[in-house]
Amino acid sequence: MRFVTAKKEDRIFVGIVDEKLSKVIDIQLAEEAKNGMGTFPSSLIECIECGDDFLQKATEIEEWAFATNSHKYIYHENEVELLAPIPRPSKNIFCVGKNYAEHAIELGSVEDIPEHIMMFTKAPTTVVGPNNIVLKHEHVTTQLDYEGELAVIIGKEGRSISEVEAFDYVFGYTILNDITARDLQNRHKQFFLGKSLDTTCPMGPYIAHKSVIPNHNNLQIVTKVNDEIRQNGNTSQFIFPIETIISVISQGMTLEPGDIIATGTPAGVGKGFKPPRFLKGGDVIEITIDCLGTLRNTIED
Amino acid sequence: MRFVTAKKEDRIFVGIVDEKLSKVIDIQLAEEAKNGMGTFPSSLIECIECGDDFLQKATEIEEWAFATNSHKYIYHENEVELLAPIPRPSKNIFCVGKNYAEHAIELGSVEDIPEHIMMFTKAPTTVVGPNNIVLKHEHVTTQLDYEGELAVIIGKEGRSISEVEAFDYVFGYTILNDITARDLQNRHKQFFLGKSLDTTCPMGPYIAHKSVIPNHNNLQIVTKVNDEIRQNGNTSQFIFPIETIISVISQGMTLEPGDIIATGTPAGVGKGFKPPRFLKGGDVIEITIDCLGTLRNTIED
Repeated sequence: MRFVTAKKEDRIFVGIVDEKLSKVIDIQLAEEAKNGMGTFPSSLIECIECGDDFLQKATEIEEWAFATNSHKYIYHENEVELLAPIPRPSKNIFCVGKNYAEHAIELGSVEDIPEHIMMFTKAPTTVVGPNNIVLKHEHVTTQLDYEGELAVIIGKEGRSISEVEAFDYVFGYTILNDITARDLQNRHKQFFLGKSLDTTCPMGPYIAHKSVIPNHNNLQIVTKVNDEIRQNGNTSQFIFPIETIISVISQGMTLEPGDIIATGTPAGVGKGFKPPRFLKGGDVIEITIDCLGTLRNTIED
Repeated sequence: MRFVTAKKEDRIFVGIVDEKLSKVIDIQLAEEAKNGMGTFPSSLIECIECGDDFLQKATEIEEWAFATNSHKYIYHENEVELLAPIPRPSKNIFCVGKNYAEHAIELGSVEDIPEHIMMFTKAPTTVVGPNNIVLKHEHVTTQLDYEGELAVIIGKEGRSISEVEAFDYVFGYTILNDITARDLQNRHKQFFLGKSLDTTCPMGPYIAHKSVIPNHNNLQIVTKVNDEIRQNGNTSQFIFPIETIISVISQGMTLEPGDIIATGTPAGVGKGFKPPRFLKGGDVIEITIDCLGTLRNTIED
């Protein structure tokens, strides 16, 4: 199943979409139409907190709604605006730095391949949805760069999670563009400020539940800028696989439902080119990951 | 005025306290007793979002309640449990690294005095209140260290704030202990993981509104461990004063009401001693800042 947060006129709702994004079910309205009353919470993060109970009810509503196919609660994609699946995370986004060896090398040398997970965060105010404009922030940066990434969405609370148990704590996956101001990242040493400019975390178009991903450690990630392929990697190249990331973070820190973990970006970022190819006004960035669709955003012109 | 979040039996409430913390007014109950109805939100973060309107109403309630002195809504400190003033921040806590030259030197050398603000974050799951136990996390760290700090609470939303305007965006101040696992901080390069173990951000005992602080750039900070003075600094020694911090963060990133900015720690942390003096089970850490009281916490035994 694939979940979105969407907007139709003034109503923001949790939706279920088909893989091609051709139909969007408003799950609250569909449940009301089916059962005469609604029990789904209003935000996707609250739905995820409900655990298996949410999934089971969502599955029933999806089957029923697609069978009835009523325009009262099923819309075509172009009738709604897709927001980020979690428009306002309840804490900063967790980000793994340098999780692909070739990317570590392109930003420095073999010496930069990390022995231990490097983790920094992006502020929740960075999040925007698919198709949203990314601000240029020209007064603070001249080195805006893309980073196509697989993001993991945590499904239940846990601490000191072992690698073997880690997958139980995953709800699903989405695409994330960890847009980075390279000059700020460099100037301030710690990555946070260079990673946290408003609108620099496009996310979506949907969260795919883990049940629809055959192998999360074998997903192709392709990033295009203005139709030119820049990044073409695979999660099989991770230095630290998802199970390790979840286990390392959670040793001593509680993970919570709705937490978002960006797993790092493959080689091919703008800074890696000689000379560097940073983003400029009007550039269109498209990140495609197997089973997760395409996240498309444009830089402010 | 000084604000707390407190708990009496099962009720968690926003309170106003006197400087000696001898009396705690439940502002919702006091307003109901005075006006027959309550208009204050239930959490301090929501109160801060209400801006000057909240302050004005809180001032009225404080004067009226202390005059009536009724036990229906005024308690003695030992009748309530003080929580962190903001028990669950809506994003990670912003932290400035190495903002006192002597502290930068004790962790390395003169070379480590930063030219630009270093900023990292602590997860919201780290926050605990005054008098709470701090977990030892012995399975992940053997180098737990204290860092007494002044924390700034943001009062209104803003982006690209100039240094001249910065003070308008401050709501008030509190004390924060940026407890750090030095081994994790070192191993993972980026500071986030070593700064984000559960319970490693004691905060409080209250938020003092900026109007009661004569000069935020001249506040003495003293940290004691088991009654021995370890840190004795003054915010006049900041490399980057609060106005600069707010201005630099907000260039491109929106600050929001309730955001918490820890301003860095003076010299005297456990790692700075030769040999290092890390925290051990049963240690009592007390941080005192002028006008802000004392934050006291004990390490799990």
